[in-house]
Amino acid sequence: MPTPIGFIGLGIMGQPMALNLHRAGHPLHLYARRPETLTLLSEQGATIHSSPKELATQVDLIITLVSDGPDVESLLFGPEGICQGAHPGTLIIDMSTIAASTSRQIAMRLAEQQLHFLDAPVSGGQTGAIAGNLSIMVGGEPAQFARALPILNILGQQITHLGPSGSGQIAKTCNQILVSQMLVAVGETLLLAKAAGVDPAAVRQALLGGFANSRILDIHGQRMLDHQFQPGFKTKLHHKDIRIALQTAAELGLALPGTALAAQYFNALMGTGKGELDSSALVLAQEQLSDVHLNDQSPHNYQRSITP
Amino acid sequence: MPTPIGFIGLGIMGQPMALNLHRAGHPLHLYARRPETLTLLSEQGATIHSSPKELATQVDLIITLVSDGPDVESLLFGPEGICQGAHPGTLIIDMSTIAASTSRQIAMRLAEQQLHFLDAPVSGGQTGAIAGNLSIMVGGEPAQFARALPILNILGQQITHLGPSGSGQIAKTCNQILVSQMLVAVGETLLLAKAAGVDPAAVRQALLGGFANSRILDIHGQRMLDHQFQPGFKTKLHHKDIRIALQTAAELGLALPGTALAAQYFNALMGTGKGELDSSALVLAQEQLSDVHLNDQSPHNYQRSITP
Repeated sequence: MPTPIGFIGLGIMGQPMALNLHRAGHPLHLYARRPETLTLLSEQGATIHSSPKELATQVDLIITLVSDGPDVESLLFGPEGICQGAHPGTLIIDMSTIAASTSRQIAMRLAEQQLHFLDAPVSGGQTGAIAGNLSIMVGGEPAQFARALPILNILGQQITHLGPSGSGQIAKTCNQILVSQMLVAVGETLLLAKAAGVDPAAVRQALLGGFANSRILDIHGQRMLDHQFQPGFKTKLHHKDIRIALQTAAELGLALPGTALAAQYFNALMGTGKGELDSSALVLAQEQLSDVHLNDQSPHNYQRSITP
Repeated sequence: MPTPIGFIGLGIMGQPMALNLHRAGHPLHLYARRPETLTLLSEQGATIHSSPKELATQVDLIITLVSDGPDVESLLFGPEGICQGAHPGTLIIDMSTIAASTSRQIAMRLAEQQLHFLDAPVSGGQTGAIAGNLSIMVGGEPAQFARALPILNILGQQITHLGPSGSGQIAKTCNQILVSQMLVAVGETLLLAKAAGVDPAAVRQALLGGFANSRILDIHGQRMLDHQFQPGFKTKLHHKDIRIALQTAAELGLALPGTALAAQYFNALMGTGKGELDSSALVLAQEQLSDVHLNDQSPHNYQRSITP
């Protein structure tokens, strides 16, 4: 018999993920701070609750997918929060991207109340959420991972158990520092071609055939060329994830100069009102820096030159 | 009838490339500063010449594949150089990685002597050279590109004509700044996992399933995990290529902060005697910086902690 699932966080990712769970036959129990996000699933028969506490009384398994650590803590431990309604043995799967250290603290605090916790952040963007082929990185006890797996298999294609609590968040942080630096690198690559008078679209195509091949060059490189910055994955979330990465690095005493550089671009994007754009908009900050623009209509073979 | 081909530069890349031309039936004419590199192809019937000048008298098409701009200029314009022996109409295809501005100057100088020139640097490493599936980025006149294409098709899989002289070098520079920054990013990614007590090999595997997927994470990430730094592509050559990239950026008045950061790691590698290692050895400099080592045998789930 399909497990009833509590789901809190029906944003750009959560909405299609919850829909996939519904289609797989799982009765959904929902709560949302923004009631307008409930419309679609409510019409499909989901049960709507007036608080996380009320929702928690009705299910054994709850998925949370919100913006940051404080949001998760408030859902769990706040007034009318999950912990006030949940019964012992309930499993909470947090698919938000938050700091690994926060995730570990939450798991310990929940354990005191005989509540189980997995950190299970995702990669793959809105397209992956819709297609149900997300990459899901999980931290927590093996028995709870086994319990969650049939549900996670509906949402994702590659599901990896990386170790105890916080390990999934570390893997997600790794993902974000890699992607952020690749955005910087792809931006510099296309702008060098543009400034030198060589068609950046042709360079992207040529590079996809060699060692420089990557999904970021392919997908985000094309977005940069087209100046098409509809998210996708919002800059303000990437900005938050990089803050988490640098916080984690500081806790570990680990120098991450490349990540620190990428963070500066996200700061500049936030400071110029671009938080709602796809994070490939990083190239806009790079374009401003040297006044070279990928959407400039001057013909290729026009080489920029400077007077030294 | 197969075109006789002059080939100068039988290094880690040139040797297998020349062999592929030989196997395709093209009579080879060779010259080498280091005679020991001639042994294999000489045994297969290649004609050996005592100077670039002498070689140039015997063929209509010459491939050069040496280390840097001054090496190419010396082969062409030096005493006993190609220009002293070549007849009008000869096509010189330079597959070395040199500065685009140097490449453009060479093309103009050769044109005065009715000699044709293409810049055609490659990506794909030694494995691509052996398999004949290199990515080749070409700059120069369309008619000469058409003339070279049947030969280039033997050496590579993706052959792109990017524009006039120097355009191929710009594309290669773009490739190198992208790859160098991806090496930095992959190194930071694996070291963050290691420092946080999560198995970096499992993180690499999980990330290959998401947006962070790339050939560098796949191939060079594995080399970093194994501390297996046999080239591949030598650090000293990547160091040279990044110097070219920063020179080109300076000529264009273009800021490339990510590339400049990667350059610092290559400087550190050269200063610590690692020039002959594969460029994935960049992670060794990153390991030194924070004293976190991927080949450290301490168990995973051992989390590094600092006293603030």
